[in-house]
Amino acid sequence: MEGIEGHALVKGRVLIGIDVGGTKVLGSALDRSNPAIPLAGHRLDTPDGADAIVDAVTETVRLLQHMLADAGHPPAVAVGVGMPALVTLDGSMRFATHLPEVVDLPMARVLSERLGVPVTLDNDANCAVVAEATIGAAVGRDEVLLVTLGTGIGGGILTGGRLLRGARGFAGEPGHMMVDRKGVACPCGRRGCWERYASGSGLGQLGRDAAAEGRAPAVLGRVDTVADIRGEHVVDAASAGDPGALAVMAEFGWWVAAGLANLVNVLDPEVIVLGGGLVDAGDLLLEPVRSSYDTLTLGGVTNGAPPIVPARLGSGAGAIGAALLADAER
Amino acid sequence: MEGIEGHALVKGRVLIGIDVGGTKVLGSALDRSNPAIPLAGHRLDTPDGADAIVDAVTETVRLLQHMLADAGHPPAVAVGVGMPALVTLDGSMRFATHLPEVVDLPMARVLSERLGVPVTLDNDANCAVVAEATIGAAVGRDEVLLVTLGTGIGGGILTGGRLLRGARGFAGEPGHMMVDRKGVACPCGRRGCWERYASGSGLGQLGRDAAAEGRAPAVLGRVDTVADIRGEHVVDAASAGDPGALAVMAEFGWWVAAGLANLVNVLDPEVIVLGGGLVDAGDLLLEPVRSSYDTLTLGGVTNGAPPIVPARLGSGAGAIGAALLADAER
Repeated sequence: MEGIEGHALVKGRVLIGIDVGGTKVLGSALDRSNPAIPLAGHRLDTPDGADAIVDAVTETVRLLQHMLADAGHPPAVAVGVGMPALVTLDGSMRFATHLPEVVDLPMARVLSERLGVPVTLDNDANCAVVAEATIGAAVGRDEVLLVTLGTGIGGGILTGGRLLRGARGFAGEPGHMMVDRKGVACPCGRRGCWERYASGSGLGQLGRDAAAEGRAPAVLGRVDTVADIRGEHVVDAASAGDPGALAVMAEFGWWVAAGLANLVNVLDPEVIVLGGGLVDAGDLLLEPVRSSYDTLTLGGVTNGAPPIVPARLGSGAGAIGAALLADAER
Repeated sequence: MEGIEGHALVKGRVLIGIDVGGTKVLGSALDRSNPAIPLAGHRLDTPDGADAIVDAVTETVRLLQHMLADAGHPPAVAVGVGMPALVTLDGSMRFATHLPEVVDLPMARVLSERLGVPVTLDNDANCAVVAEATIGAAVGRDEVLLVTLGTGIGGGILTGGRLLRGARGFAGEPGHMMVDRKGVACPCGRRGCWERYASGSGLGQLGRDAAAEGRAPAVLGRVDTVADIRGEHVVDAASAGDPGALAVMAEFGWWVAAGLANLVNVLDPEVIVLGGGLVDAGDLLLEPVRSSYDTLTLGGVTNGAPPIVPARLGSGAGAIGAALLADAER
């Protein structure tokens, strides 16, 4: 398509990626030969229910195709969709926490039929690790572990430069790794899952525990009652230098590091990319994580555990990676 | 080499595999086109110290080459060595528990120079998973998790039909996955490592705990004092139907299953192969493991966790897999 008038800027194939999050549907159109510069973008609030989500994705893709045409770009030849869900190898959504009533929705097939272009579906953290390894924090690395710390914990694994999907497509879900045998009950039915401690929800719980025991008055001062404390209040108080909040961040960092050390023993990545909303806290998060990590990995024996770096692509990673995966699978 | 007189039985390449265990050095020569039928075998006691081990491997390879020649087979064209050790991608032994004084021994290079054939070195459980996927319990499977329950816990992972080695070669070491935050101290410096509970040593400890609390008189009856109880005494009493010992096996099965469930969340294998000496206990081990596993995996959501099957190749898996890996890497 190079050289055709009006298409001069596009040198590869045009792809669309859609990230269906719990609150936002983010869409992005990109040129495969230059994925870092989006050709068009769109966002809308995530609606309730599976049918409405399929409609929202359809609408977003159509809008982006119009935007591409208006700008003189060729149409997208493939669409990738990422979701915080268990996704089967053939693009069915097996289960998503925010859509508990929906099981085994063949979303890739339904969307392909509606849109008339090939559509692939994958887990959002799988998308993110592909994006970070292509144009983000892990460029050129073949052995990458991405862990997202949001409401829950997501994971994406590259090995040999290839996404580790597993037999059914459900690999890379470390949030329900048991790290405390007699720990907090988890909605999954087990106890002591990593996600109970090392996610945004976990940070909120550590903050409430500390406030209830009088260890975090500056955190409690930001809300009406202990029950209102969320992770962001702990981060906020910690960024103001409050010792109680900083102690909660240290405890939180230990939990994050403990799970990462477990995963290093299994996967031995070159680099660990930390993503998700909590990474916006920067060194307030990374310093306590790294400090505990050094004591928790088998460092003396293995000469250097893999470095922990923050994700670079922020909330855009899912859509970019979904687009890249749609191309890789055509 | 087909058709050459005296070599008629060998249709592929001849390979030698050596498994350097904590107590035995097992050597096996095989034909790549028919690896299930060994052409020659040898075993000797594992000597003390790294130099003596290198000598023992050298001697075993030379002996097997003589045995091959005597039987009219062509010489082995490559040698693979497996060890219960952290092994780097270039065949150096970084660290082995039974050789704590040796760090970073370039064993593959040293042996290649001595023997005049290419030598590869890998972790013993990595070798075993390749053997089980080639001629054992996981034939034809591309996503395989092998976990060996011996004195400690070893692991080998195939994904996409390829060994998951990680960035340094240290992947597949789940024994030091923390599963109990405030659990038993581990020689590795952490607390609550899976290996403290779900290995042969772990079973011994569960047996001693039960006996000390009067819960396992039939186990205690097999030894002089509580401190003498090892895993085999629990298995022995359980196989005689003793309720106290069976309760310890149930507890042990829970620990094994809890770690396997963690690994399923990360790797999503098609099948889990359980190996190591404890598997000789058969259903006494497998039934309690499977029973707890069904309650610990995210079964309701993921529709069927991967099956757990016993290894088929027993103590021969390491040598066979080492030979196969030596061929794959030529």
